[in-house]
Amino acid sequence: MSELEVVVVGPDSQAERTVTPGTKAWELFSDDADVIAARVNGDLKDLSYELVGGDRIEPVAIASADGRDILRHSTAHVMAQAVQDLFPDAKLGIGPPVTDGFYYDFDVEVPFTPEDLDKIESRMRKIVKENQRFARRPIDDDEARVELADEPYKLELIGLKSSAGDLEGAAEGASVEVGSGGLTMYDNINRKGETAWTDLCRGPHLPTTKRIPAFKLMRSAAAYWRGNEKNKQLQRLYGTAWETKEALDEYLHRLEEAQRRDHRRLGNELDLYSFPDEIGSGLPVFHPKGGVIKREMEDYVRRRHIEEGFDYVGTPHITKAHVFELSGHLPYYADTMFPPMDLENSQYYLKAMNCPMHNLIFRSRGRSYRELPLRFFEFGTVYRYEKSGVVHGLTRVRGLTQDDSHSYVTEEQAPAEVQHLLSFILGLLRDFGLDDFYLELSTRDPQSDKFIGSDEEWETATEVLRAAATESGLELVPDPGGAAFYGPKISIQAKDAIGRTWQLGTIQYDFNQPAGFELQYAAADGSRKQPVMIHSAKFGSIERFMGLLVEHYAGAFPPWLAPVQVVAIPVAERHVDYLYEVAAKLRTHGIRVEVDEADDRMQKKIRNAQTQKIPFMLIAGDDDVEAGAVSFRYRSGKQDNGVAVDDAVERIIAAVADRVQV
Amino acid sequence: MSELEVVVVGPDSQAERTVTPGTKAWELFSDDADVIAARVNGDLKDLSYELVGGDRIEPVAIASADGRDILRHSTAHVMAQAVQDLFPDAKLGIGPPVTDGFYYDFDVEVPFTPEDLDKIESRMRKIVKENQRFARRPIDDDEARVELADEPYKLELIGLKSSAGDLEGAAEGASVEVGSGGLTMYDNINRKGETAWTDLCRGPHLPTTKRIPAFKLMRSAAAYWRGNEKNKQLQRLYGTAWETKEALDEYLHRLEEAQRRDHRRLGNELDLYSFPDEIGSGLPVFHPKGGVIKREMEDYVRRRHIEEGFDYVGTPHITKAHVFELSGHLPYYADTMFPPMDLENSQYYLKAMNCPMHNLIFRSRGRSYRELPLRFFEFGTVYRYEKSGVVHGLTRVRGLTQDDSHSYVTEEQAPAEVQHLLSFILGLLRDFGLDDFYLELSTRDPQSDKFIGSDEEWETATEVLRAAATESGLELVPDPGGAAFYGPKISIQAKDAIGRTWQLGTIQYDFNQPAGFELQYAAADGSRKQPVMIHSAKFGSIERFMGLLVEHYAGAFPPWLAPVQVVAIPVAERHVDYLYEVAAKLRTHGIRVEVDEADDRMQKKIRNAQTQKIPFMLIAGDDDVEAGAVSFRYRSGKQDNGVAVDDAVERIIAAVADRVQV
Repeated sequence: MSELEVVVVGPDSQAERTVTPGTKAWELFSDDADVIAARVNGDLKDLSYELVGGDRIEPVAIASADGRDILRHSTAHVMAQAVQDLFPDAKLGIGPPVTDGFYYDFDVEVPFTPEDLDKIESRMRKIVKENQRFARRPIDDDEARVELADEPYKLELIGLKSSAGDLEGAAEGASVEVGSGGLTMYDNINRKGETAWTDLCRGPHLPTTKRIPAFKLMRSAAAYWRGNEKNKQLQRLYGTAWETKEALDEYLHRLEEAQRRDHRRLGNELDLYSFPDEIGSGLPVFHPKGGVIKREMEDYVRRRHIEEGFDYVGTPHITKAHVFELSGHLPYYADTMFPPMDLENSQYYLKAMNCPMHNLIFRSRGRSYRELPLRFFEFGTVYRYEKSGVVHGLTRVRGLTQDDSHSYVTEEQAPAEVQHLLSFILGLLRDFGLDDFYLELSTRDPQSDKFIGSDEEWETATEVLRAAATESGLELVPDPGGAAFYGPKISIQAKDAIGRTWQLGTIQYDFNQPAGFELQYAAADGSRKQPVMIHSAKFGSIERFMGLLVEHYAGAFPPWLAPVQVVAIPVAERHVDYLYEVAAKLRTHGIRVEVDEADDRMQKKIRNAQTQKIPFMLIAGDDDVEAGAVSFRYRSGKQDNGVAVDDAVERIIAAVADRVQV
Repeated sequence: MSELEVVVVGPDSQAERTVTPGTKAWELFSDDADVIAARVNGDLKDLSYELVGGDRIEPVAIASADGRDILRHSTAHVMAQAVQDLFPDAKLGIGPPVTDGFYYDFDVEVPFTPEDLDKIESRMRKIVKENQRFARRPIDDDEARVELADEPYKLELIGLKSSAGDLEGAAEGASVEVGSGGLTMYDNINRKGETAWTDLCRGPHLPTTKRIPAFKLMRSAAAYWRGNEKNKQLQRLYGTAWETKEALDEYLHRLEEAQRRDHRRLGNELDLYSFPDEIGSGLPVFHPKGGVIKREMEDYVRRRHIEEGFDYVGTPHITKAHVFELSGHLPYYADTMFPPMDLENSQYYLKAMNCPMHNLIFRSRGRSYRELPLRFFEFGTVYRYEKSGVVHGLTRVRGLTQDDSHSYVTEEQAPAEVQHLLSFILGLLRDFGLDDFYLELSTRDPQSDKFIGSDEEWETATEVLRAAATESGLELVPDPGGAAFYGPKISIQAKDAIGRTWQLGTIQYDFNQPAGFELQYAAADGSRKQPVMIHSAKFGSIERFMGLLVEHYAGAFPPWLAPVQVVAIPVAERHVDYLYEVAAKLRTHGIRVEVDEADDRMQKKIRNAQTQKIPFMLIAGDDDVEAGAVSFRYRSGKQDNGVAVDDAVERIIAAVADRVQV
C-alpha cells in the first residue's frame, strides 16, 4: 500500500510526515504524555483517530483550554458511570464541560445527599484506577434509539437533532452529546475488554480513564431539563478536573479565597449595603459605611474628571421614548430596558444610558470648533433589565451608576482624545490599587446587519482605537463582532488580587449618534461639521467596581476608602478623655475616627477592630497619657508603642492622602 | 323704636355701641376713609349693611387682604362694565380677585388687541371718575334668569348653584358670582340715579367706583369656560388694583424685577440648564455651568450634614409597590406618582419619596438605643407627577433631588432633635444668603379621615414641634389641616431679595411609618421600643432652590457658587502669558478661572464678563506686568488698579471661602 503524507503542526513550526496507512494519531505523539487529543483539520479528535492523507494534525495538551475541556468532559462520563453503577435507576440528562469544571444532570427519585457524593467520588476513583478505555463507535439513529430505549432524555436529544438541528439553542451542552454530524457512542471498555458503560456522545475523549490526573466532586443542585421551568427538575452534579494535583489545589484555594472575599458576605459583615427583597432584585441600598466608600469613590473620580477637562452635567433618570429612538437604542435595545410608563399620551422610559441626554446638552446652543474637545461627565444612574437568574450582588445589578462621559471632538482630534482617555482610565484604576491590565478591541462582524455605518467609517474608527491601544504597550486581544452597534470599542480588562479578570473601562468611537441627533459645530472655515463622539466609562459602574474592590481587598480597604479609618481604644476607662482629644485632632483633618467606649475589655476591642478591618488602632494607657503618646497598631497586628500623638496623626494623614494600602 | 346694641371690634380692642335701628355700617366708620367694607359676625358685608342687634362688626381697611380682594373684585366689575360699554355683544363669564389682581372672562367674537385694552382702561377711568355707586339687590332665581336672559354663562352658574351647590368646584371664582345663599345683583348707579350696569354677584363691593385708588389693565389671554378644554374658549382680561398709587408702582416694579430675574430666562442667558421637549415636561438637564452650581450646592450641603452627624446613604430610584404600601403612600399618594412599570409579575414605581427605603436600611440589622439618634441623609432624586399646566422652570418640576434626611430617635430625644434640625436648616439657608424667615406649623384637621394616628400621638407630636418653633423666636403661623397624613410639620418660609415668600425646609414628626415598617430598637432596659422618625428637607429640592437662588441673586451668584469665578482680561495679546501665570496660581487654590483670549477688544471682554455676571475680572497691561500686579475689577464696575498678584489671589480666595456676596 502507498504511504500517506500528513502535516504535523507544532507550537512554533510545522513538519511534513510520511506515515503508513492505518496509523493512529497517538503514534505521532507517543513521546509526549501530556498530549491527550489532536486537532485534525481544525476539528478535535480522539488520539485513536486514523490518519488520512493530507491531514493537518496538531497535538492537544491536557494543560490547554481544549485539553481541559476534554479532560473535564471525560471526567463527567466517569461520574455518570459511577452514578449509574450506584443508582441503576438514574436516567441521564446532559454532561458538558463548563468554566473550571463540568456537570452532569440526572433524573433520580431522591436528590443526592453529601454522603451520596462521597460514594460517587469513591466509585469514580475506582473507575479511574481501572484504566478503562474511551472507545468511539459510530451508530445510526435507529440503532441508537434501540440501545438508548431506557434513556428518555437521550432519545429526546436524538429527536431534536433530527428535527431542528440547532442543538446549541436546544440545551446547553446538548451539542456535546450528539454533535451536528452522524451519531456516535462512547463505550468505557474495562481491562477484560468488556463494555462497562456507554453514553451517547460526540467526543472526543481522553484515551483512558487513568489519564484523569486530578478531580473533585463539588456539589449538587436542582436544574430543569433543558433549562425550562416547565420541564422536569433533574439533579445536577458539579465537579472539577485539572491537569495536575497542584492545579486542582490551586483552583480549590482560589475558590476558597473567592468565597472568603465574596462581596455579598463581606457587605453584610461590614454593614456596607444590602439587597432588600421588598425593593426588588438587583437594586442595592447603601448603608452608612457603604455610603462612605461610595462617596469617597465618587468624589475622587469626579475631581479627577474635572482636572482632566471634563464638565460635570446632570440629566434626569427618565425620558420620553423619542430620545432613545434618535440614538438608535429603540427598538433594538428595548429588551434590556425597563418597560415604559404611559403618561399623557407619551411613553416614558427609565434611562438605560446617558449619551442621548448629553447630546441634547451639546445641541442646546450653537457650538464652535474653539469649544472642542467638549467633555460631558455625569454619575448617571441607569436601569437595565437583567434576568433574575443572572443578577448577582453588586457585580450584576439592575440599577447602576455609570461614571459616564462623552467627548465631542473633531475627527482630527479623535486619536489624541482616545489616547487621553485610555491613559486617564488606566491611571484612575491604578489609583484604586489595580495594576495588571490587558485591552480588548471589539470590532464589528461584517456579516451581521446589527452594525450601523459605512465600511470607511468602521475602518477609520477601528484604526484610531487600535493605534491608541498599541501605543499603550499593553497586550491587545481582538474581539471580532463584539462592538456596539454604533462603533468599535476598547475595553480595559484588569486582574484582581486573586487573578480573576474583570472588564472595566470602555472607550467607544461613535459616528452614528452625532448623525442621528444632527450634532454640528462651526468649523474654523465657517462650515458646519459633525463632531465625533467618544463614549467612555472608567469603572463601568460604581456599584460593580465597589463589589470588585471589596473582593480585591477582601474588605480591608486602603485607609482613604475605609469607612472608619481609625479606632481609638482605651486601656481603661480613665484613658477615654485623652483619646477623645486625639480623635478631635484627627477630625480636624477630616479623618474618620471612633473612640470605642464600650464596656468590653481592650483585647475584645482590638479583635472587633480587626474583624471590621479598620486600618489603624490607637491604644492608650497610663504611660501613653503621661508621654503624650499612643500605641499605634495596624490591622495586620503590627504595633509600634510610644508613638507621639502628633507623629501618629501625621502618619495617618499621610497614608490617607497617598491612597496607599497599609 | 328701641335701640340696638352692637359690638365694634378694633385691631386691639372691642367696644359696645348703641345705635338706632336703620343705622348702616358706614356710619360707624365714617371718620376713617380707609374703611371700605365690614366683617359682620364673620362675614364680609358692604358698608351699606344695615345693623341688627347683637352684631359684631369689624372694619375692613382697603390695605388689608380682605380689603384688597374687595377692591380688586370691584375693579373687575368696572372693567366688565367698560367692556360691555365698548363691546355690547360681549357675554360675561366670571370675574374673581386673584393674587395681586383680578380677571374677568368674556365671550367675544375677536380676541382683544392691545389697543382694545387701552380703550377699556380709558373707559374704566371714566367710570371711576363718575363715582358710580355699587348697589346690592337681592333677587330670586327666576327673576335673575329673566334679567340675565342674554348672559348664557351667568344662567349656567345659576343652574349650577340650584343643582349642585358646590360652586367652588364648578369654576374658580364662580362662588364670587352667586355665593351659597340667595342670589344678589349689584347695580352700578350713576350720579343721575340711573343703573349704568348690572352684574350677578354675591359681593361685597366698595361703596363707589371712586374708592378705587389705583388700577392697571395687564394683559389678555385665552381661557376655557370653567377651565375645561371641552368648553368654549373665552377671552380673559387680567388687571391689578391697589390701595395707593405707590403700592401699584411698587407692585409693577416687583413684577419687572421678577421678570428680569426669571430663572428660566437667566438659565438660558447664562447657559445653566435647559428643559428639552424631547425628554419631557418638568425634567431639566444641567449644562456645565449649572452643573458647577449644583455640585457646589450639593458638596456644601453634604459636608454640613456630615458635620451635623448625618450618615450618607444611597437608595435606588425604583422599587416594587410593596414598599410604598408599607409606608402608607399607596394607594393614597398614587395620583402624584408616575404610573407603574410591570415587570416579572411585580409593579415597579419610580420613588416619589425616600423615607420608605431609609426605613429598610434602619431595619437591615438590629438597632440599639446607643445608636440613636441615627440620621440617614441622601440626595434622593424623586419623581412626582405634576400636571403639565403647573410645571414651571426649576421651581415646579417632575424630577427633583431632595436633600432628604430621616432622624430616628427615642421619644425622649425628639424635642432636642427637632431643635437641632431647625437650627441646622436655618443656618444652612443663611449660608446661602437668605435671612428673612417665618415658620408655619401644619396640623391635622380633626374632622378629616385623611390623618392616621391617635389623638394623643398628634397632640404630643404637635407640641414638640410647637415648642421648638417657639424657641426659635421666629414668627409662627398656624396652618390647620396642612399636615402630612402621618404627622404634623414645621415649614420654613423665607423671603427673597424682592420680598417674595418661598416655602423651603420642612420638619415632620412621624409616628406612623415606624409602626408600618415595624421599626424597633433595644432600649437600655432590654425592651424593644419603636423609634420616632423625623423627616427633614433643607431646601426642599436642589432644583427648586437653585431656581430660587438664580432669582434671589438675579444670576449674580456669590463667588463660591459662581460657575466662573474669575476672568482674566489682557489689555493686549502680549499680556496673555502673564495672565496664564496668574490663572495657574488661582487654579492651585481650586479657583475657577478663565483667560479671555478672544480677538475682541478689552472693553468688549469686560462687557462680556459683566453680562455673564462673573464676580471678578483681573485685567493686565504693561504697567501691571512690570509691577507684578493686576487691575482688580468687580462685576459692579468698581475697580482697584495696581493690586499685587498675591493680594489679588488672597482677596479672591477669601471671598470664596467666606461665602460672601461681592
